Amino acid sequence: MATQLNEACVTLERSVRERVPPLLTDLYQFTMAYAYWRAGRHQEPAVFELFFRDNPFGGGFSVFAGLTDCLLFLRNFRFTDQDVEYLRSVLPLNTDPDFFTYLKGLDCSTVSISAVAEGTVVFARVPLLEVSGPLAVVQLLETSLLCLVNYASLVCTNAARFRIAAGPRRRLLEMGLRRAQGPDGGLTASRYTYIGGFDLTSNALAGRLYGIPVAGTMAHSYVTSFSSLEEVWPQTLVPSGGDDPIDFISLVKGWLGRVCQLLGAKPQQVREGELAAFLSYAIAYPHNFLPVIDSYSVSCSGVLCFCAVGLALCELQYQPLGVRLDSGDLCRQSVEVRCVFKECSKHFAVPTFESLLIVGTNSVSEQSLVELNKRDNEIDVVGVGTHLVTCTNQPSLGCVYKLIEVRGCPRMKLSEDPEKSTLPGRKAIYRLLDIEGHPQMDLICLSEETAPKVGVPLNYYSLGLDKAVQSFTPSQVTSLRIDVFSHGEIGLPLSSAPESRACAQASLQALYPHHKRLQEPENYPVAISERIHLLVSNIRRGNSKGSNFLLSN
Amino acid sequence: MATQLNEACVTLERSVRERVPPLLTDLYQFTMAYAYWRAGRHQEPAVFELFFRDNPFGGGFSVFAGLTDCLLFLRNFRFTDQDVEYLRSVLPLNTDPDFFTYLKGLDCSTVSISAVAEGTVVFARVPLLEVSGPLAVVQLLETSLLCLVNYASLVCTNAARFRIAAGPRRRLLEMGLRRAQGPDGGLTASRYTYIGGFDLTSNALAGRLYGIPVAGTMAHSYVTSFSSLEEVWPQTLVPSGGDDPIDFISLVKGWLGRVCQLLGAKPQQVREGELAAFLSYAIAYPHNFLPVIDSYSVSCSGVLCFCAVGLALCELQYQPLGVRLDSGDLCRQSVEVRCVFKECSKHFAVPTFESLLIVGTNSVSEQSLVELNKRDNEIDVVGVGTHLVTCTNQPSLGCVYKLIEVRGCPRMKLSEDPEKSTLPGRKAIYRLLDIEGHPQMDLICLSEETAPKVGVPLNYYSLGLDKAVQSFTPSQVTSLRIDVFSHGEIGLPLSSAPESRACAQASLQALYPHHKRLQEPENYPVAISERIHLLVSNIRRGNSKGSNFLLSN
Repeated sequence: MATQLNEACVTLERSVRERVPPLLTDLYQFTMAYAYWRAGRHQEPAVFELFFRDNPFGGGFSVFAGLTDCLLFLRNFRFTDQDVEYLRSVLPLNTDPDFFTYLKGLDCSTVSISAVAEGTVVFARVPLLEVSGPLAVVQLLETSLLCLVNYASLVCTNAARFRIAAGPRRRLLEMGLRRAQGPDGGLTASRYTYIGGFDLTSNALAGRLYGIPVAGTMAHSYVTSFSSLEEVWPQTLVPSGGDDPIDFISLVKGWLGRVCQLLGAKPQQVREGELAAFLSYAIAYPHNFLPVIDSYSVSCSGVLCFCAVGLALCELQYQPLGVRLDSGDLCRQSVEVRCVFKECSKHFAVPTFESLLIVGTNSVSEQSLVELNKRDNEIDVVGVGTHLVTCTNQPSLGCVYKLIEVRGCPRMKLSEDPEKSTLPGRKAIYRLLDIEGHPQMDLICLSEETAPKVGVPLNYYSLGLDKAVQSFTPSQVTSLRIDVFSHGEIGLPLSSAPESRACAQASLQALYPHHKRLQEPENYPVAISERIHLLVSNIRRGNSKGSNFLLSN
Repeated sequence: MATQLNEACVTLERSVRERVPPLLTDLYQFTMAYAYWRAGRHQEPAVFELFFRDNPFGGGFSVFAGLTDCLLFLRNFRFTDQDVEYLRSVLPLNTDPDFFTYLKGLDCSTVSISAVAEGTVVFARVPLLEVSGPLAVVQLLETSLLCLVNYASLVCTNAARFRIAAGPRRRLLEMGLRRAQGPDGGLTASRYTYIGGFDLTSNALAGRLYGIPVAGTMAHSYVTSFSSLEEVWPQTLVPSGGDDPIDFISLVKGWLGRVCQLLGAKPQQVREGELAAFLSYAIAYPHNFLPVIDSYSVSCSGVLCFCAVGLALCELQYQPLGVRLDSGDLCRQSVEVRCVFKECSKHFAVPTFESLLIVGTNSVSEQSLVELNKRDNEIDVVGVGTHLVTCTNQPSLGCVYKLIEVRGCPRMKLSEDPEKSTLPGRKAIYRLLDIEGHPQMDLICLSEETAPKVGVPLNYYSLGLDKAVQSFTPSQVTSLRIDVFSHGEIGLPLSSAPESRACAQASLQALYPHHKRLQEPENYPVAISERIHLLVSNIRRGNSKGSNFLLSN
C-alpha cells in the first residue's frame, strides 16, 4: 500500500514537471526579474499573497484546491538550459549575460509558503497562499501558481455546488473529458470534481493517477454497430452457478416475447441491432450489464431489449445492474422505465428487478439538477459533462497574486478602483467557529498580532463594507493556514485525492446551510483587525514618504 | 532552420505523448472494446466521423484546429504495461486475460484518417475528420480525438471573432495563462489563438514550443515593490550613442519638473515609488520601456512619471515604446494619454513621442472590443485574457464522434431528437466557390458519387431544413478533406503555428462578410446530395432488416 502510494506520488510529480515547467509563465516575469537583478534587488525579501475577489457562480463559498500541484511545482522549479537559451533569444539584446547564469542556478530552496489546506471551504478576499522569498523568485512564481489554483478551485467549487444540488444520496459521475478545455483541463476536472463531491469519473487516466473510482459501460456507437442477431457470438452463456452453456439467444427471445406481451408492446418495433448489442454485451459482461437504452426508442425498443436480456441474466443467476438514459426528458422516462421494472419484477417474480439502477446523462447543469429534485423521477446516478468541467456559468475564478511586503515594509496597491486595492502586510488568518463548530467569521490580522482568544471580545471591521468597528466574542478559534513549504521541501504529507475529498466534504458539512445556498446565499463575514484597518488608513491618507520628493531636492 | 523545425516537432510530439496518453479516455471505450473482442468483431472495418452540430458563440462559422495534435497522438498510440495493468484492475473480474495481451499489441498502423486542413473555416454538421480502421481501435480513439479538436477549434474560433471585432490593424496580445482551465488549457489557448488571428502571446513556453512572438514588460507588483528613489541602482545610463554614463535620476527629475509645469500637474502627487520603478526599468531596458501606468493614478502620477522617464530616454537617443493601461475606462484614458503625448511631443520638439504605443488590458471581451471600435480611443494593442482563453460566451464546442459504417454497411443513429440523428455512410465533402473564390456552399456526398463539375447543375437538399430538392451550378469545386494518416504514418508535412495561422487568415479572408458577421450572420448553406438524402429516407422508412425477426423465428 505504501509502495503504491509512493508510486502514485512519483507519477503525480512527473506529471506536474511535464505539464507545468517553470517556463509556462508570462514573459513579463522575466523582464521584471531582470530589472530587479540589474538593480541588485532580486534577493530582497518579499511576500506575495494569492486570493480571489468574488466567490464564483454567484455563490457564498468556494473550495480551495490545487495546493498539491503547487507544492510539486515548487519542488521541481528549475530552468533547463533550453529554457534559458530560449529566454536569451527573446529578451532584449542588451540583457546582461550574467542574468542567464543567475536563472540557471535558480530554485525554490529559499521560498516559504503558508497555505490553507487543500479542500477547505474558503471565501472571497481571504489570502489563501502566502509566498515569501527573494523578490525575483517569488515574482517568477506568479503565473504558474495562479494557473494551478484558479481552475482547480473553480471546478472543485462547481462540483461542490452540483453535489449540494443533487442532495447527499444521488451518485454523481463526472464524464466531461471530451468537452474539457484541453486534455489536461479534462484530467484536472476529473481530479477536482471528485474532491468537490463527485463519486465516480469516466476518465481512465484519472483513475490510474489519482485512485478515483471509474465507471462506464457503452456508447450509442456500440448499439448502432450491430444490425442483426447473427453478429452475436458466442451465442451461449454459462449460468452463474457454472453448469453447461445455455443458448442465450433463444432464452432472450423467449423473454422478449413475454415482456412484450406483459407490456402490450409490438415485437416488430423492437430493433434487432439493439437486441443484438445488448445480448453481446451481456455475454461479455454478465455481471456488469448496464446498457444505454435510447439509441432508437426507449419505450418501443430499448427498455424491452433490456428487460428481455436482464430477465434472462436473472434466470441464469446473474444480476443486471441497470440502464442509462442519454436523451429527452430524463425525469419522465426514468419514471416510465421504473414502472416497467416494477411490472416485470412483480409479474415474473424477480424482486431485484424493481430496484435496478437508472443512470441519467443528458447535458445536466446545476440548474437542471435543481429542477430534477423538484420533479418525480427515478434517477439513481447522474452523469455530468460539459457544464461541470467547463464551468459554463463562470468559466474562470480570477485569483490574483499581490505583493504585500518588501524588506519588511508593507506594500499596497492603491487602485482608482477600490475593489482592486489590496491589504498590505503579512497576515495571520483565523476562522472563528461557534460552539458546535460551524464557521462564523474569517478574521484577517497582521501576523505580529496576538491570536484571538476564546471568550475574549475582539474588535473588527467588515471587509469591503464601510462600517464602524464592531465587536465579536469567539467560541472557538482555528488558524486557517499552515506552513507547507520551506527550504525547498514540502512540509506536510501530500493528500491523496480521497483524503482531500474527505477534507472538502467535512469542511462543506460544517458550513451553515444559509452560507451554502446556491442562489442568494447569506454573506459569510470576512473581517480585518483594527491594526490592519489602521495600516490601510495610514497608507491611504499619507502619501507618506516620497510625497514631495521632487521639491525636496 | 530545418534542424530547428525538426527539434520543434520532436518537442511537440513529446508534449503530446506526455499530455495525451491513450489511457486519457473514457472507461467505456475499453468495456466496449472488450465486448467487440469477445464477439470476434474487433477487426471489423468501421468508420467514424467527427463533427459539431452548431457554430459556437451564435456565429456563422468556426475554424478547425487540433489536427496536428490528433496526428501526433495517433502516431504514438500505444498502451504501456502500467496502463494495461491498471485496466486489468478495474475491468470486471471475468474479463478474458487474452484481451489484455491484445491491448498491449495495439497501435494505429491500421487506422486511416481523412481531414480538413488545420486552420480551415468550417461549418456546423460538416464531418471534419473521417476515421476508419478496425472497429475496436477506432472506437478507442473517440474521447482523445474529441478532446483534442473540441477546445482547439473553440478557442481558435473565439480568437478569429476577436480579430474580426478588433479590425485588421489593431494588434492583439493573448495573455490568459493565469485564468485558463489548467496549465495545458493555457498552452493550448496561446497556440490556437495565435492561429485564429492574435499577433502575440505573453506565454513564454508557447513562444518556445510553437514559435509564437512573445511580449510583456511589467506588472503592478513591480511598481509597488519600489517606494523610494534610493532603491534605483545603477543611477546612471550610458546614452545610446555610447558616451560616458549620465546621472539618469537627475535627468529624469528635471524632465518631471518640466512635464508637470507643462501639464499643470502637482509634483507632490507624483508617487516616488512609481517614478523609481520606471527609472529602474528604463535603466535595465532602455530600448524596451513600456511601463504599466495605473498602479496609483494615471493622470496624477503614472503618465507624468512615464513622460519624465520617456523624455529623458529620448534625450539620450533611446526610443521609449509606450504605456499600458490596465484598469478603468480604457478609451477615455487612452485619449487623455495621447493628448499628453502630443503636448509633450510638440512642446519639447520630440516628434516620435506623439505616436507611442498605448496598450489596453482590462477584462476585454468580444463585446467590449466591438464597443471600443465605436468610441474615440487611442489604443494600439489590446491584451486579452480570461474571456478569450476560457471562451466565456460558450466554453465548449460540443464535437461528437459518430459511427457511420461497419463492414461496408452505412450506420445511422435514429434519435427521438432529430437534431441528434447522424448522416450514414462514407462521404466526400466539397466546397463550392464562386468565380472570385468565395465559398458559397459545402456539399456532402457519398464517397462513391462522382464529384460535382464546374458549370454542371447539381441537385441538393439543404441540411436540417425540410425543403424540396434544389439545384446549383458550381463555378469552382474544391475537395474539403485530404488523407492525412495511413499505415501508422502522418501523410503530410505538419504545419507550424505560423503556417496554420496563414491558412486560417486566408480562409477567413475568403469568407463573405455576411457569413462572418459576429451577430446574426447569414446562414452558410450546408447541403447533402440526393444520394445521401435517399439513403437517410430509406433507413428512416424501413426499419429495414430485422424489423420482425422475433416473429420470423
